[in-house]
Amino acid sequence: MKKVLVLNGPNLNLLGIREPGVYGETTLVEINRMMEKLGRQFGLELEFFQSNHEGSLIDRIHQAYGRCQAIIINPGALTHYSFALRDALKAVNLPVVEVHLTNIHAREHFRQLSVIADVAAGTICGFGPESYMLAVQAVAALLAKEENQ
Amino acid sequence: MKKVLVLNGPNLNLLGIREPGVYGETTLVEINRMMEKLGRQFGLELEFFQSNHEGSLIDRIHQAYGRCQAIIINPGALTHYSFALRDALKAVNLPVVEVHLTNIHAREHFRQLSVIADVAAGTICGFGPESYMLAVQAVAALLAKEENQ
Amino acid sequence: MKKVLVLNGPNLNLLGIREPGVYGETTLVEINRMMEKLGRQFGLELEFFQSNHEGSLIDRIHQAYGRCQAIIINPGALTHYSFALRDALKAVNLPVVEVHLTNIHAREHFRQLSVIADVAAGTICGFGPESYMLAVQAVAALLAKEENQ
Amino acid sequence: MKKVLVLNGPNLNLLGIREPGVYGETTLVEINRMMEKLGRQFGLELEFFQSNHEGSLIDRIHQAYGRCQAIIINPGALTHYSFALRDALKAVNLPVVEVHLTNIHAREHFRQLSVIADVAAGTICGFGPESYMLAVQAVAALLAKEENQ
Amino acid sequence: MKKVLVLNGPNLNLLGIREPGVYGETTLVEINRMMEKLGRQFGLELEFFQSNHEGSLIDRIHQAYGRCQAIIINPGALTHYSFALRDALKAVNLPVVEVHLTNIHAREHFRQLSVIADVAAGTICGFGPESYMLAVQAVAALLAKEENQ
Amino acid sequence: MKKVLVLNGPNLNLLGIREPGVYGETTLVEINRMMEKLGRQFGLELEFFQSNHEGSLIDRIHQAYGRCQAIIINPGALTHYSFALRDALKAVNLPVVEVHLTNIHAREHFRQLSVIADVAAGTICGFGPESYMLAVQAVAALLAKEENQ
Amino acid sequence: MKKVLVLNGPNLNLLGIREPGVYGETTLVEINRMMEKLGRQFGLELEFFQSNHEGSLIDRIHQAYGRCQAIIINPGALTHYSFALRDALKAVNLPVVEVHLTNIHAREHFRQLSVIADVAAGTICGFGPESYMLAVQAVAALLAKEENQ
Amino acid sequence: MKKVLVLNGPNLNLLGIREPGVYGETTLVEINRMMEKLGRQFGLELEFFQSNHEGSLIDRIHQAYGRCQAIIINPGALTHYSFALRDALKAVNLPVVEVHLTNIHAREHFRQLSVIADVAAGTICGFGPESYMLAVQAVAALLAKEENQ
Amino acid sequence: MKKVLVLNGPNLNLLGIREPGVYGETTLVEINRMMEKLGRQFGLELEFFQSNHEGSLIDRIHQAYGRCQAIIINPGALTHYSFALRDALKAVNLPVVEVHLTNIHAREHFRQLSVIADVAAGTICGFGPESYMLAVQAVAALLAKEENQ
Amino acid sequence: MKKVLVLNGPNLNLLGIREPGVYGETTLVEINRMMEKLGRQFGLELEFFQSNHEGSLIDRIHQAYGRCQAIIINPGALTHYSFALRDALKAVNLPVVEVHLTNIHAREHFRQLSVIADVAAGTICGFGPESYMLAVQAVAALLAKEENQ
Amino acid sequence: MKKVLVLNGPNLNLLGIREPGVYGETTLVEINRMMEKLGRQFGLELEFFQSNHEGSLIDRIHQAYGRCQAIIINPGALTHYSFALRDALKAVNLPVVEVHLTNIHAREHFRQLSVIADVAAGTICGFGPESYMLAVQAVAALLAKEENQ
Amino acid sequence: MKKVLVLNGPNLNLLGIREPGVYGETTLVEINRMMEKLGRQFGLELEFFQSNHEGSLIDRIHQAYGRCQAIIINPGALTHYSFALRDALKAVNLPVVEVHLTNIHAREHFRQLSVIADVAAGTICGFGPESYMLAVQAVAALLAKEENQ
Repeated sequence: MKKVLVLNGPNLNLLGIREPGVYGETTLVEINRMMEKLGRQFGLELEFFQSNHEGSLIDRIHQAYGRCQAIIINPGALTHYSFALRDALKAVNLPVVEVHLTNIHAREHFRQLSVIADVAAGTICGFGPESYMLAVQAVAALLAKEENQ
Repeated sequence: MKKVLVLNGPNLNLLGIREPGVYGETTLVEINRMMEKLGRQFGLELEFFQSNHEGSLIDRIHQAYGRCQAIIINPGALTHYSFALRDALKAVNLPVVEVHLTNIHAREHFRQLSVIADVAAGTICGFGPESYMLAVQAVAALLAKEENQ
Repeated sequence: MKKVLVLNGPNLNLLGIREPGVYGETTLVEINRMMEKLGRQFGLELEFFQSNHEGSLIDRIHQAYGRCQAIIINPGALTHYSFALRDALKAVNLPVVEVHLTNIHAREHFRQLSVIADVAAGTICGFGPESYMLAVQAVAALLAKEENQ
Repeated sequence: MKKVLVLNGPNLNLLGIREPGVYGETTLVEINRMMEKLGRQFGLELEFFQSNHEGSLIDRIHQAYGRCQAIIINPGALTHYSFALRDALKAVNLPVVEVHLTNIHAREHFRQLSVIADVAAGTICGFGPESYMLAVQAVAALLAKEENQ
Repeated sequence: MKKVLVLNGPNLNLLGIREPGVYGETTLVEINRMMEKLGRQFGLELEFFQSNHEGSLIDRIHQAYGRCQAIIINPGALTHYSFALRDALKAVNLPVVEVHLTNIHAREHFRQLSVIADVAAGTICGFGPESYMLAVQAVAALLAKEENQ
Repeated sequence: MKKVLVLNGPNLNLLGIREPGVYGETTLVEINRMMEKLGRQFGLELEFFQSNHEGSLIDRIHQAYGRCQAIIINPGALTHYSFALRDALKAVNLPVVEVHLTNIHAREHFRQLSVIADVAAGTICGFGPESYMLAVQAVAALLAKEENQ
Repeated sequence: MKKVLVLNGPNLNLLGIREPGVYGETTLVEINRMMEKLGRQFGLELEFFQSNHEGSLIDRIHQAYGRCQAIIINPGALTHYSFALRDALKAVNLPVVEVHLTNIHAREHFRQLSVIADVAAGTICGFGPESYMLAVQAVAALLAKEENQ
Repeated sequence: MKKVLVLNGPNLNLLGIREPGVYGETTLVEINRMMEKLGRQFGLELEFFQSNHEGSLIDRIHQAYGRCQAIIINPGALTHYSFALRDALKAVNLPVVEVHLTNIHAREHFRQLSVIADVAAGTICGFGPESYMLAVQAVAALLAKEENQ
Repeated sequence: MKKVLVLNGPNLNLLGIREPGVYGETTLVEINRMMEKLGRQFGLELEFFQSNHEGSLIDRIHQAYGRCQAIIINPGALTHYSFALRDALKAVNLPVVEVHLTNIHAREHFRQLSVIADVAAGTICGFGPESYMLAVQAVAALLAKEENQ
Repeated sequence: MKKVLVLNGPNLNLLGIREPGVYGETTLVEINRMMEKLGRQFGLELEFFQSNHEGSLIDRIHQAYGRCQAIIINPGALTHYSFALRDALKAVNLPVVEVHLTNIHAREHFRQLSVIADVAAGTICGFGPESYMLAVQAVAALLAKEENQ
Repeated sequence: MKKVLVLNGPNLNLLGIREPGVYGETTLVEINRMMEKLGRQFGLELEFFQSNHEGSLIDRIHQAYGRCQAIIINPGALTHYSFALRDALKAVNLPVVEVHLTNIHAREHFRQLSVIADVAAGTICGFGPESYMLAVQAVAALLAKEENQ
Repeated sequence: MKKVLVLNGPNLNLLGIREPGVYGETTLVEINRMMEKLGRQFGLELEFFQSNHEGSLIDRIHQAYGRCQAIIINPGALTHYSFALRDALKAVNLPVVEVHLTNIHAREHFRQLSVIADVAAGTICGFGPESYMLAVQAVAALLAKEENQ
């Protein structure tokens, strides 16, 4: 069974509490539970980690090296400036799917730059919790494709 | 049964021919067939239209008004400058999912700006033909959510 | 009797339907009828053409060469990037009045650049359908002045 | 009878004298007289004020508060930097029509930015003294529309 | 007893009238009265001056030279472009406290640049009329500190 | 009694040691003691937290949710890039006062941008330790005003 | 015999009519005839196509795929924004020579950017109709070189 | 005898008082006296005017029209933003010499842009009060040259 | 017989040695010989000069004044910053053809700006040594046209 | 014996693992051992610390205050945005040598800005592990020089 | 007797020949003769040097070190990019007067930046050959002032 | 024995004379002597060349081709604009070490861009004459590494 690391960055622990008008009412725990279930359908074992600390996210990415086959990440606001996170993702050389709950292109100007994007295989944004579900499927497809090569 | 308009912009008719190293080997016809099949599973009837003419794409969006419930669009290079396409999508006021085969953020600089993005519900990019399949599911989720409100 | 070509660009056929909160409730057909009537008071015969195709607008401008004495144009979103439309207007060398329903300077950032403006005699924007009526009078004044020289 | 304040900014007292090649040969006094006459046809009483002092223009705008129903303004070169004038116009909350004799978009680069534009209902530029006449009609239309709501 | 000049720039005479949703309902006269009272508690005699004329504000700053020990200034929109005001403040070489009713960083883009700020000792913004009260205390502290050196 | 969280970001633990020529000689402990005393006069109970870790500051802000009524924050250099800190402050939806010891507008260029400012109620900068005292009063005023509404 | 597609973009049908002071007095038909003759000397069969429609130009480029050995293109004003045209040229993977009648670097600022240039083998501009003749020879040389490899 | 208007903008009345380290110790009155004397040697009658009001400077420039043959101006900080002053100088169409006491290119960044410079015949800066003396000679030379043509 | 000066700037003496993958294997001597021969066919006598010294190139351009009828120049990297070379070419007022071996628009970013281009009649780039041959013909055409006027 | 703190930022623990094509095959442990040995030759005692946490690096820098005589730092990706790290280095006021394995100027655009550089004595980059050895010598030289003053 | 080095950069040897419409008809030799004469009146011995070689100008500046008391320089187009020339002028630490024949601020955009200006005492531009004469007087004044200190 | 070319650009001949506060008191001759000695320890024979002429530096780089194994260069101010020097270094395809006496990142803004850096193996800056010594060792290491491959 393939392992996938699911990372959530700063403030995403507040999901369902923080600005519900913008981010919806589902909590991160609920999303994780749904992802886990969906992952199992695709033969994927998901590991979840959320932190408000850039360094802890990087440590966790390093640990995934040699243990996980892919990474799903919603870097929260780190998306816009954490070159260190970017380098960590690049270093472990796993397929990465970048996820955002909201359509970052339709919000504040600073949210339109992702310093992570160019090391990701692809990006999914704007569909609320559903973004994560699509990411699970995207990862499943990426790994299947890899296998067939 | 809900109708979804699937639009492909300039040069996407060359899919599977054009720069296979970048865009893969599946043709647009094959992608459409797969989408159609997947759509039916979600109770969606898909209509397909490809054109190299910005104006024809806009005409088709107008026709979707009152007949379709959502739009999936890969605007090709029009992504980066066609404010007219953007206004058309905004005008008909349907949920729009923007799709790209490649991760546009990891390519040439000019591909990193989408003038369409801020009128889309969300964006999916980087997963090759799979991007379209994820878009079908995203649309299904968006419409289901709409219904429940 | 002098002839004036009245051009409307992409999405303006949706007037009265599209985003009524922004663009008002009068349709393009109604506006045209009012312009026609007003034009006749000034001894002007108006020809109307709307298209979502940049190329068709350019073709029509070329046809105006030698047949019309002035052009009134609302280029829609082409305002912001169609250098080809600009060159067509410049080439036929007729007085051009640029019209916008809304005050483009008070809207999205990208709407604040007009690549057409520097080949127009003048611009009228922000008065809704009334903008077109003022444009008819502006054209009448321009042609009267030309005659007197 | 409705009152409309007509403001002219720095150097416009030189109209008909200053750079006739650019600004034409009609003096400001003559323009005012024509506006007054035209205004009366629309049931508008016009008040005229010209000053080379930003502060005096602002004082006058304040006085218009509660006494006038609309403002026509050609801010001259203040157009391009006087945020104080902009705030004054915004503060009194009357419909404002911005007027320019020349097509500011076809002149020097610095003339292409108007810091006033986003607080104006609309803009008319490029038609010489006729710009003012169109502005009178635009104001008449704005006030008529307001009345009907 | 130490003297402090309190300057208010363009449009601030409209306080309590102008855009109450943004600037609150207290008038400038009321604010001045409160400041005066608070000043007296700190042994400060306050002089008040408001003008819509950049030149008059500069004249008043010059007069403060040798007569006042500090300046509190809300330059209004001059904040964003009046280098002349800036030079005047710099020339008289008194401690300056810059005050704004609103949080200028959370408003329009052009309000985020203050050409005055680098000649001020400090800035207080965002607390409505309370901003002025805090400024009085800030001045008192600055002067007390000066005395102790 | 109302609770206020007082946060200090990276390097502020060095206050009174670090670059005394720039930041003064009072230590953070001394400032906190003075704030505490002043807070009590206004019926405020202050909690103090300093960290060089962005993540720890965010964690602490989350904990304030539902327990504190306001936040005073000097984010140190995080002011200029920590969008994650900004989002945390926004998420807990409490009145925030941003504080800086120095006038950041009169120092290095990069210090002139605050990514925090637009989620703060207001900003106080340039008065050394006194900035914190003014912030306590600003918070007191904000909370009093809130209560009266 | 090798085939070469010669494309002319918007407004180039007006050659010899439009702004003769800038573009000269030779018509496009005359230029084509001269090119045809010159081409034959180099064993090249030329096909000509002009359109004011971006989409039609793209369609024609697609048709050249597998039928032509090279493309000569004067994209007119599309040079400056049509990324779709650029992608079409890139997709068919033929040697492309970009031609301009005038020295685009010595004209308006916006004419100095070519979004086409980086997919062209080379560029020739500034020699009026002679630019096209040089392009024919450049193509002949490119194809000869290709053959020899 | 030819007349020359000598204008000094905001804060220059403080010369000899204001920032002597930067601007020197000679007062404006002393400079004027020296200029007057030097002017007489060249057959020039000088008129002096200083104001902190942009509007008053413009009024004075208008009065020079038809009465003076040249203008020497040190616009102070208005140099950097007063397009209205620039238009006034352009309108009266007299030879203008721009003067600065300091080398504006070696000071703050904002001082390096002069919006006046392109309507001046020439500029002299960096020589303290001597700058004005050189300006008198420059004007004398300009007028002599004009006469000889 | 007409004389044409052929100039080559810094590092072009290394042609055929330097980065053959980019610049090809033909040496400058060989190119010159081919140009000479081709030139003779058009009745042109070519003079050749290469230097790594900007000053020497300028000296040589000055010497061409009154002796040569045209200039062909490949300025090498000076293309991108030598305003002095540009002024020299402008000063002697001869038709100039700018040549580059490679398509400078498809290489490093800094190569996309030519400070020479706006004083050249036209530009030819991207065809390797053939670029020079086309330049000879372009010069021949320019001189022939000149003669016919 | 003098103490030198050697700091390595995010992801540098992966050295020898991560992107060996870019960063080489020597591990950080090996580099540290070599540095230690070299340091001893110069009478320097080296302390090593690596962390993926910005905050931990800052804490460590603070601890160096009064205990170490110099700092060698490779901040990894924090180089490009951590103003907090920069302030920490500035605060402890020790000679700092900035080290990079690769030539950051020849890589991605964002790597070309170092927000640390202006508080460092000097920078060494591009020599792989050797960069660290050179840094040890640079520190030795800096301290020797300091001693001699 | 004090010595002053007068330097003229690239293309200034063409004065009186090159673009007389822009630069006038006086040759450099004539200007030098006039300067020499004027210099003698002020007790200055002038040395003249013109070169099209940046390096030669720098060599000459070095030679002036310890032999001359001031430098007058018209760097021609080197003004806009020669940081090497700038450093040479800075290194020898003599008062420098920058001269231009034309008002560089009223010409092409690239002429508006002088990389020399911030190491010059002052600048004189726009008065044709007279600019040099004013420079001689400016130097005389600078040296006299120096002597008096 | 391996040969290394040591190049010094404009104004570096003034070392020890020019701005000693910035560049130190050691002369270039002394530095060269120290380098020579150090080079010999590493089995390197050093050749020294300094010039104020960009062209002479390029000539010398060309001569190194096939004769030297590496280049150490301090390009002086040419660092910031000489693309010609950059191309020369690239063309001869030898390992290059860029050296600066001062930390260019902590000085004027224009010194922060090196157009040379991306063709260098690495950079050493900020250690005064010691920078050159470190460069000798860096070159020794680079050549040793090359040999071992």
